[in-house]
Amino acid sequence: MLVAQATNTPSGTQLRPIDTLRDSVRLAAGLTENKLLGNDAYQRGLAAIRRFGERIRGFDPANVRAVATNTLRVAKNAQQFIHDAQQALGFPIEVIAGVEEARLIYIGAAHEVQAAQGNRLVVDIGGGSTEFIIGKGYEPKLMESLYIGCVSHSIRFFPKGNIDAHSFKEAELAARREIQVISGAYLKSGWNQAIGSSGTARALAELISANDFNGHTDGLTMGRVNASGGLITRDGLRAMKKHLLTYEHISQVELLGLKDDRRSVWPGGLAIMLAVFDELGIEEMEVTDAALRTGVLYDLLGRSQHHDMRYVTVEQFIQRYSADREQATRVGKLASEFLQQLPKPKTESRADNIALLQWAASLHEIGLSISHNSYHKHSAYIAGNADMPGFSKNDQARLAALLIGHTGKLGKLANNSGFHDWRMLFCLRLAQVLCRGRSDEDLPKVKVSDEDGAYQVSIPKEWAQIHPLTEFSLLKEAAEWNRIGRSYELNLK
Amino acid sequence: MLVAQATNTPSGTQLRPIDTLRDSVRLAAGLTENKLLGNDAYQRGLAAIRRFGERIRGFDPANVRAVATNTLRVAKNAQQFIHDAQQALGFPIEVIAGVEEARLIYIGAAHEVQAAQGNRLVVDIGGGSTEFIIGKGYEPKLMESLYIGCVSHSIRFFPKGNIDAHSFKEAELAARREIQVISGAYLKSGWNQAIGSSGTARALAELISANDFNGHTDGLTMGRVNASGGLITRDGLRAMKKHLLTYEHISQVELLGLKDDRRSVWPGGLAIMLAVFDELGIEEMEVTDAALRTGVLYDLLGRSQHHDMRYVTVEQFIQRYSADREQATRVGKLASEFLQQLPKPKTESRADNIALLQWAASLHEIGLSISHNSYHKHSAYIAGNADMPGFSKNDQARLAALLIGHTGKLGKLANNSGFHDWRMLFCLRLAQVLCRGRSDEDLPKVKVSDEDGAYQVSIPKEWAQIHPLTEFSLLKEAAEWNRIGRSYELNLK
Repeated sequence: MLVAQATNTPSGTQLRPIDTLRDSVRLAAGLTENKLLGNDAYQRGLAAIRRFGERIRGFDPANVRAVATNTLRVAKNAQQFIHDAQQALGFPIEVIAGVEEARLIYIGAAHEVQAAQGNRLVVDIGGGSTEFIIGKGYEPKLMESLYIGCVSHSIRFFPKGNIDAHSFKEAELAARREIQVISGAYLKSGWNQAIGSSGTARALAELISANDFNGHTDGLTMGRVNASGGLITRDGLRAMKKHLLTYEHISQVELLGLKDDRRSVWPGGLAIMLAVFDELGIEEMEVTDAALRTGVLYDLLGRSQHHDMRYVTVEQFIQRYSADREQATRVGKLASEFLQQLPKPKTESRADNIALLQWAASLHEIGLSISHNSYHKHSAYIAGNADMPGFSKNDQARLAALLIGHTGKLGKLANNSGFHDWRMLFCLRLAQVLCRGRSDEDLPKVKVSDEDGAYQVSIPKEWAQIHPLTEFSLLKEAAEWNRIGRSYELNLK
Repeated sequence: MLVAQATNTPSGTQLRPIDTLRDSVRLAAGLTENKLLGNDAYQRGLAAIRRFGERIRGFDPANVRAVATNTLRVAKNAQQFIHDAQQALGFPIEVIAGVEEARLIYIGAAHEVQAAQGNRLVVDIGGGSTEFIIGKGYEPKLMESLYIGCVSHSIRFFPKGNIDAHSFKEAELAARREIQVISGAYLKSGWNQAIGSSGTARALAELISANDFNGHTDGLTMGRVNASGGLITRDGLRAMKKHLLTYEHISQVELLGLKDDRRSVWPGGLAIMLAVFDELGIEEMEVTDAALRTGVLYDLLGRSQHHDMRYVTVEQFIQRYSADREQATRVGKLASEFLQQLPKPKTESRADNIALLQWAASLHEIGLSISHNSYHKHSAYIAGNADMPGFSKNDQARLAALLIGHTGKLGKLANNSGFHDWRMLFCLRLAQVLCRGRSDEDLPKVKVSDEDGAYQVSIPKEWAQIHPLTEFSLLKEAAEWNRIGRSYELNLK
């Protein structure tokens, strides 16, 4: 956990770290074969989060952002854990997709490491996934997340801590095989500076330095070690591997600076890093730490300063999927007006909900790019599965639910106990019905209300009389809500 | 059914109709509430197809194309029916998507109706769906298929043949509400000539003419009636509606030329046609018949003359989803080479299978446009759901299955008893593994064989030694096939 203070400087707002709490929980090691988070890891995780929660009690929720990564992307009981963890922390926790993690890592690393000219490559070896990013300045350009990580790799290739040359070779090849999928595009883009950004990278750099694996401590190399981290070289990694392979079990390894909490996951991390160096042709790599945490905070700072990445993403999607921008804006505007007529939500932020509703309106027709038939399902599929920079998995799931429900039958959502955004859906559907003519002209003055879940829609009688088609559609809309047991009344006044 | 002979003329190959068999089966009326094709309709359909089969016995399969439309798109027991119908016909039957039906209808209508300058609108009211197409010359540009049809509309709004003004109004509004979704784009595009292309349109034109619903038989109007059909006017439709509403039951209606097999579905068809005229602002519409049948034959003719629409579609998809064209070509070429080393299929055409395999290779990475994570699932989703001109639903389902299986685990396909394209999948996966480096250089000479379902892959030993990463991947590939109980042997020679 990183606590930082935002400070205005002539070159923009900077985050000054105030406090760092580190707790090496190794959640990934707690995943059972059938992808369940085992009880030990579950409790270790909760305990750590409870400690963090104590430190930030009383913070404004708008200033806190907690993210969960790979282990909670894949664990089948992740939802239960997130629920418990949110209680322990006292703040919401977002599960973020691999590519979103990659984006945040780059932003963090770009703020932490002195900028080089041209492209930078950032590699972040985590417990269960590794992120690869190429960017320039503060802007990530290529982002990928692969399912290889130091914890999962160590468990798979060095079970119970046993080490041998064959297994190490297999571990390297398996990692290279994954990296091969992206190496073509990355090599084509190229970079001037390679940065390793995780605990694994920092530990490897420290071990190389402490045990003199580079075989030389000349001023040149030492001079290039940056303040926060160190330097990983290909020679250093090879010497370390050679040293490791003189042992048969991880517990026997003697190395200066090898910490106990790192020992068991170090062979997997080393194999992956060697694969990264070989597959991408890297000779040396600078090291930084805590890039994800720093990136999360800069991203949060951006949101508060109206540089919310999510608006950029939605804008890109409207273009990519050739959506009708005018219609998207029209529906979004009307839906927001309706939401503002309804009571304020008790536990959520109205501003957040209006943003979500407008994004849903912006994206509601993207599925037309696949097919007109069942386009709402395609819109939901894209929003639920696409890489959407700035959005958490939960954001995307809520968007997808609004999109699948924005027209047609409501039965599936009615049977989905996890869906709670009924008011937003009510507003979105009503706006969609009224805007079917795709024209700003001649929209009626509509009043809406929600009395304990009973929706009321009032439309001027004279308007309805000269718009029989819309009136017909509104009656169908009311019938559909009543059909799923939700009261919906249409009043002509 | 239409039997035609291709004749070369100075302006291209023309189809000269030789024989037409018409059998009004009304499959759509046989759909039960839970979307099952009832036994009566099932048997009526089979009997008609058996009669057709007799007429074309002995034809070269390359010269026969049978398509099924909306009722068999939606019926839950369609698969069983298609199976029985294929036996009765003696030729394959393809279920085509609504948009593909629209494309074929336009091609047929464009060949049947004298061309006007500029855009043409074609409307085809079927039993359960209505297609709307705008095109120019022989080229369709906008294609849509909506779930309104004369049979389903008659059953829904005039149950048991009862007629009243309120129900008729509801029927018109319900149809307009569906059409409204597309009317904006269609009106924006505009047209100079409106054509109605189905039996419903022909019947309406005949009724208007026979009963003088236009109220005038002046030379101008008569002169514009074309040879194959007639003319529908807005005034004529209104007069017909007025006449219809003087009765309380469809059985009482007295009209010159109202055929018994048309009587029960005529009110629904009339309401939809009125909605089409109102929503799209049409004043008069020329009529042709059998547009779908003619279009299917011209499309088949195109395939035999190397104008197969499916190649055009795949090319468009590569562009639309920014796929790596070189990689697609590389994988497709290699996969086809492998398939040609395997025994010829007994019941299928090798050329057809090679085409399908190459399309799968061309499309295998389109899912990357959504996300790198699980991209093969996204590729399959798009291929399974997108509008793909020229492809039947079955083509798309086979493509989607090859795409979802082209990498990763094979378990799901192994459990799918409907999947039979194992050889193609074997070739596609092997090509994909060998091409992971995305380079034409340094591909090995590979020999493949299939002895009663036991795959053998032979690779030169020296090549494998200097490509340990590919060798590693090939071993994983063999293991995956063996895991699902299919024998797969890798030989280094």
